[in-house]
Amino acid sequence: MNPITDNPGESVAAIGERALIGRIREWLGAAAPASPRGMGDDCALTDGGTNLLTCDSVVRGRHFDDECRPELAGAKLLKRNVSDIAAMGGIPREALLALMLPRQTSLAWLEGFVRGLAAAALDYSVLVVGGDVTEAPAFCASLSLTGRASRPLLRGTGSEGDLIYVGGPLGGSIRGHHLTFQPRVEQGMFLSYFEGVSACMDLSDGLAKDAPDLAGPGLCAALELDAIPPSIEAQEMCDGDGAALLRSVLCDGEDYELLFSVRADRADELEAAWFDRFGGPCFRIGTLVPHQPGGPGLVDAATGLPPEGCYGYEHLR
Amino acid sequence: MNPITDNPGESVAAIGERALIGRIREWLGAAAPASPRGMGDDCALTDGGTNLLTCDSVVRGRHFDDECRPELAGAKLLKRNVSDIAAMGGIPREALLALMLPRQTSLAWLEGFVRGLAAAALDYSVLVVGGDVTEAPAFCASLSLTGRASRPLLRGTGSEGDLIYVGGPLGGSIRGHHLTFQPRVEQGMFLSYFEGVSACMDLSDGLAKDAPDLAGPGLCAALELDAIPPSIEAQEMCDGDGAALLRSVLCDGEDYELLFSVRADRADELEAAWFDRFGGPCFRIGTLVPHQPGGPGLVDAATGLPPEGCYGYEHLR
Repeated sequence: MNPITDNPGESVAAIGERALIGRIREWLGAAAPASPRGMGDDCALTDGGTNLLTCDSVVRGRHFDDECRPELAGAKLLKRNVSDIAAMGGIPREALLALMLPRQTSLAWLEGFVRGLAAAALDYSVLVVGGDVTEAPAFCASLSLTGRASRPLLRGTGSEGDLIYVGGPLGGSIRGHHLTFQPRVEQGMFLSYFEGVSACMDLSDGLAKDAPDLAGPGLCAALELDAIPPSIEAQEMCDGDGAALLRSVLCDGEDYELLFSVRADRADELEAAWFDRFGGPCFRIGTLVPHQPGGPGLVDAATGLPPEGCYGYEHLR
Repeated sequence: MNPITDNPGESVAAIGERALIGRIREWLGAAAPASPRGMGDDCALTDGGTNLLTCDSVVRGRHFDDECRPELAGAKLLKRNVSDIAAMGGIPREALLALMLPRQTSLAWLEGFVRGLAAAALDYSVLVVGGDVTEAPAFCASLSLTGRASRPLLRGTGSEGDLIYVGGPLGGSIRGHHLTFQPRVEQGMFLSYFEGVSACMDLSDGLAKDAPDLAGPGLCAALELDAIPPSIEAQEMCDGDGAALLRSVLCDGEDYELLFSVRADRADELEAAWFDRFGGPCFRIGTLVPHQPGGPGLVDAATGLPPEGCYGYEHLR
């Protein structure tokens, strides 16, 4: 049977990434436990809930291009995974590296990729304990990472009225941040120990797509759009065009900042403690409000409607 | 920088898989601990030595072709990893599945792949707890697997005079065994608790390539070639040609049987206990003998020379 179909309606592209993941869970059936012990959060919790497991991949031409130094591509693979551990308040530990590469892969390029990955691993105290090398038609690399978290933070566990925060400015990642970002391990650990933090995740596909996951079932993220901090790169790219800037902030993706919710009575204290700890602010951008049945998971707090034309990044479409 | 080189001498194919893995370890430097806590065995040992981590991949056109039912391809990915856990005497636990797929991937094909993987996961009590879906030019899938082993077995830890065994017949895997094999989890656990078993691994690249790894530094696997059991498929393929049969048994690869060494004074008892437990024999095929400096890691016990023309499967060449 040919894995590739000529009929677009029968292909994975017909349903897109989000629906495809739903199907995969269905096909896995009893082999796939529910979140947080299985799929659905940044990491899976194992061993009674303090061990974390996650994996992420990079593909040539999608996550980096040929202009990119191989060291940055390798570091990106490691950091994408570390960001998932950080999102749950964990400390990263051991990594497995699966390389799928063409026979014509340049040794010099691969050396750069692996050295960049190793340097990032040392930055975050990750040990690369194993892996696999396989011949493939195109360069892909997949990394699995373990972590530990004594008080893991989940998505979608906030309550009505909790305030929504983001740890740093958003948008414009294509200008370089998608390669040079720093996973927020210390911020995640700080949040996991701060009483009143009710949910946390990292922003990888853009606030518009990710915020509904923070809100969880029954709730919706009502955002004060003016309060969302744009990155300098997003401001430069949009050059005063407010609508474009809002789209950039909501939809660009690959921000790798933490998005989290905090009980309202703890919010002032959290902001002060965050500033003390990190020497800069976190940003209050909205509130968890009751969900309209069948309605959007994200609304503009000023209008109660979803911000127009902002859907985040949908893979495989 | 382009990952692909036009100069074959500068490509990964110029050095082959084994040397490439050596380079990768060198490039990883301080980020890669030594075996058994890091690369070099079937799995890495973590958390003080009782947790196992491994990963393995399948690529369309290399590990399965378009004649293969997708269920078998998915099951193969799971079982390859389970075999690595079995090789260390462990019990498999949690899996992460990274899918890299073209937009034109058929949903029906992918459903078969995932359902086959899930059925194999249930067979071996594996939970698929997470994963990643990424668009890529060709279908690749990588799986990472955790395991537990209270008394993990390693490679290369035998002593001079230990006897070498294989758990089942070898060769001819291309006739179907490379898809339908059963990872030897129970055999591995049995061996890990049997006093006197000194080393163990699974046979994936063929006895000729793998046996030197069992022997380890300072020792060499001296094999009684007539004692190596050929599979029925290998016998059918070779149709009475003794030299071809020997090559098949030594070099075909993808046998996924256990290769292990046992202290000579415990060998008779092991054979009897194995027969009692599994209802069939294991096969005594040689002895660990001192290594000639610079010499081969595998020799014909009758001649002291390596069997001619038998090198096992060398990837990326």
